[in-house]
Amino acid sequence: MMAMIEVEYSACVSETLHVMTNLGLLLVSVDKVGKPNAMTIGWGTIGSIWGKPTFCVLVRPSRYTFDCIEATNDFTVNVPPQELREAVGFCGRFSGREHDKFTEMKLTAAPSLHVKSPVIEQCPIQYECKVIHRNEVIPENLPAEILESAYPGGNYHTVYFGEILAVHADPEAKVGL
Amino acid sequence: MMAMIEVEYSACVSETLHVMTNLGLLLVSVDKVGKPNAMTIGWGTIGSIWGKPTFCVLVRPSRYTFDCIEATNDFTVNVPPQELREAVGFCGRFSGREHDKFTEMKLTAAPSLHVKSPVIEQCPIQYECKVIHRNEVIPENLPAEILESAYPGGNYHTVYFGEILAVHADPEAKVGL
Repeated sequence: MMAMIEVEYSACVSETLHVMTNLGLLLVSVDKVGKPNAMTIGWGTIGSIWGKPTFCVLVRPSRYTFDCIEATNDFTVNVPPQELREAVGFCGRFSGREHDKFTEMKLTAAPSLHVKSPVIEQCPIQYECKVIHRNEVIPENLPAEILESAYPGGNYHTVYFGEILAVHADPEAKVGL
Repeated sequence: MMAMIEVEYSACVSETLHVMTNLGLLLVSVDKVGKPNAMTIGWGTIGSIWGKPTFCVLVRPSRYTFDCIEATNDFTVNVPPQELREAVGFCGRFSGREHDKFTEMKLTAAPSLHVKSPVIEQCPIQYECKVIHRNEVIPENLPAEILESAYPGGNYHTVYFGEILAVHADPEAKVGL
């Protein structure tokens, strides 16, 4: 078990974005009865809006994660180490409707301090987020190139603006950089 | 004049967010005839969406900057040094409709490589951005607390998703951290 400390919201942003682009991050939510699910994301932004540290993630309405976030209004974002590469691939390919990804991939759900969604104990950086806003990707406002590459079947993302309530980090972690 | 080099989009994210929250960033755009304007912003997010490095900024429709971005579809974000503290304050208080802020605040507009909006030569980190998406802050989806603090008069922000086409940084810069 890692010795996690709480850090400023912007302390690990470069590492987080690097891993997001090169491996993927694990977006964790829970369903109505509290069962956790992890979805791999390669897109997102971090910053501050309305004076609040913010993690923006995009989720298609067809996803199981969408139903979970709509039910609880919160999520966590977890930065996986290289050793979780297989789990990251699995959580990107399969749906939580058909798989218990935490059990099958031996991910350990640890309670969050501020939100219902747990964090993943094996991940050396963890963001706890509460949804404070949501809007939509608007097809009419996208270049044709993105419409073709990301939305051949529609299913336009909802953008969740998550207030970052806490960031936990393992000061020893190299997160595979 | 600083010796700027081009860096990865995520290289200066922590510094950029830190200055954004503690001093402010300068969002630069040009009007139809090419006159540059700078607006101070304290809100924004950085990451990657649709596989593209992205800088999201929020602009109210009442702003002069809104008309400029709508006209050109691009902007730059500039991270000011502490010495520009007065200019940052000025660019947050006054409108480009009544003031030539670059002239009055002795800001030097330097040509960008990829967009019409110039960068500010005195700023040690500069992002060149092309708008690839825009949507809106939706009042119905905001907590009452944010509605009251940020939108007593309505005028809800447009969210501009700017693809980061280049980041220029002065490797010597401490940007007042």
